[in-house]
Amino acid sequence: MTTFRQLGEREVIRRLARLVPDRADVRVGIGDDVAVVGHAGAYDLLLTSDAVIENTHFLPDAPPESIGHKAIGRVLSDFAAMGGEPLWALVDLVAPAETPVEWAESVYRGAARLAARFHLAIVGGDTTGGPVRELHVFGVGRLPAGEAVLRSGARPGDVLYVTGALGGSLAGRHLDFEPRVAEGAWLREGRWATAMMDISDGLLVDLERMLERSRAGAELQSQRVPVAPDALAAKDGRSPLEHALGDGEDYELLFAVPAARVADFEAAWKARFKLPCSSVGTITAEPGRLVLRDRTGRVLTPGRAGYEHFA
Amino acid sequence: MTTFRQLGEREVIRRLARLVPDRADVRVGIGDDVAVVGHAGAYDLLLTSDAVIENTHFLPDAPPESIGHKAIGRVLSDFAAMGGEPLWALVDLVAPAETPVEWAESVYRGAARLAARFHLAIVGGDTTGGPVRELHVFGVGRLPAGEAVLRSGARPGDVLYVTGALGGSLAGRHLDFEPRVAEGAWLREGRWATAMMDISDGLLVDLERMLERSRAGAELQSQRVPVAPDALAAKDGRSPLEHALGDGEDYELLFAVPAARVADFEAAWKARFKLPCSSVGTITAEPGRLVLRDRTGRVLTPGRAGYEHFA
Repeated sequence: MTTFRQLGEREVIRRLARLVPDRADVRVGIGDDVAVVGHAGAYDLLLTSDAVIENTHFLPDAPPESIGHKAIGRVLSDFAAMGGEPLWALVDLVAPAETPVEWAESVYRGAARLAARFHLAIVGGDTTGGPVRELHVFGVGRLPAGEAVLRSGARPGDVLYVTGALGGSLAGRHLDFEPRVAEGAWLREGRWATAMMDISDGLLVDLERMLERSRAGAELQSQRVPVAPDALAAKDGRSPLEHALGDGEDYELLFAVPAARVADFEAAWKARFKLPCSSVGTITAEPGRLVLRDRTGRVLTPGRAGYEHFA
Repeated sequence: MTTFRQLGEREVIRRLARLVPDRADVRVGIGDDVAVVGHAGAYDLLLTSDAVIENTHFLPDAPPESIGHKAIGRVLSDFAAMGGEPLWALVDLVAPAETPVEWAESVYRGAARLAARFHLAIVGGDTTGGPVRELHVFGVGRLPAGEAVLRSGARPGDVLYVTGALGGSLAGRHLDFEPRVAEGAWLREGRWATAMMDISDGLLVDLERMLERSRAGAELQSQRVPVAPDALAAKDGRSPLEHALGDGEDYELLFAVPAARVADFEAAWKARFKLPCSSVGTITAEPGRLVLRDRTGRVLTPGRAGYEHFA
């Protein structure tokens, strides 16, 4: 017998993914930000689910509106990572019978406010008794058939970018982040991004996933990684860079742009968005080889690599 | 402050449903077996989600294959209740870090076996740490646009039918039931059913929901209610009829057929299915009035009305 803790989340999913039945209309199954399925017509559908669980994703005294915001925001961020348009969601609520209904109403108000801003309808849901409070959000989105921006498209020479700034999100941003839906759709429409994902488990861990799917490597420049003020303010003995590389729950976009289009891309981005976008490194040829260098060219070894659910 | 227990599941959902954002393409939102949304093309999509939670929906020592079977079966039963065709599902697993991966693999094997039989692809999923083991399944199905069989279509004079037999499912059937997907699709295709739903919380509670949506009443004949052998064998002081009316987790179909088509319907059903189908009563005009009579015409008052999640 092997436990979830021993095997780790990624390997658990890999073992379970082997067992599931497929259909001919499934374009992208388990292993990307969302599943992509073909349906009659000009659009592919995007299917995703995210859980927000008490003591894992929020503390018992977190503001309930923020919990709803986070649950919907995670699903919106998944759609952003493919360049998709949000359509419909179901929200399942698990809670002990002693939970105040007013708490649940506040959660739903936070969920509804963010969903409405992105034209995501909440069309169903369920409530069930359980030992802790949980939200499970299932989302359906769409994009033009065949145009999903996957994790698998990065090619050697592509320049890696991240939106916003990273690290220290536990100080509050993990509860009130802004999903990058408009940015993701714009990146897809302009065909700027060869590969894209959102940063949920930390830049290093998530980049490793992109490299695995793209069968490529990458070199990151540590001084280019955009460090959030929350990471600079952290006083726990870990450096701001370590926070930026490993904390996760940033919900920023990580994507690759072909080198030949970098100048056009940067000009077009600045003309369209106020949000900063930073080039942090390049894609290299050797599969799985991820190197981090400081400004002198010295190779750094990060102290802790992202967030692991069962570690 | 009011707790979930004080308000009850139905009223909690009613209060939360008021808060959620809508879209023009939502045909049926919160309140039926599944949500129905319009999409470009000849089909409507069906969206549903169901949770299966340790100590609520299964005991810790339940066979893991059965837990997977139940989780997928509940979603398939939702599609059956609309007359829909299953397409894709996501499966989210919550589990403590000490959970054996072999347990999860057995759960997935049970889920995969049932899903494959109904051509339901499992296209994604997630694993998250939490205090008890849970499965959350999100399903997408379809049917020809505008043809979903809702709870709201029952009319006075219609005859009420249930498939199979009811009661005592906790003895085992709740873990290995057969979702009535073929039966539901056949009822829709032949336009036999004016209203339909699956029986998850007990015949009386679920029929009340149909009556509420149809703004109608009903009269049930107690001697016609098909009582399952498990209900006859129960030795807990409650009568077999009480079990059949109130236990729930039957996952049989409850539907209404216009009186003028009853003879044709019964002949067509018998020619097509071996599964029994029993007429149990009729729809009446007075909204919300549900009457249960014995064979002498005397009105019975059931002792306990179905299953309530937070009671």
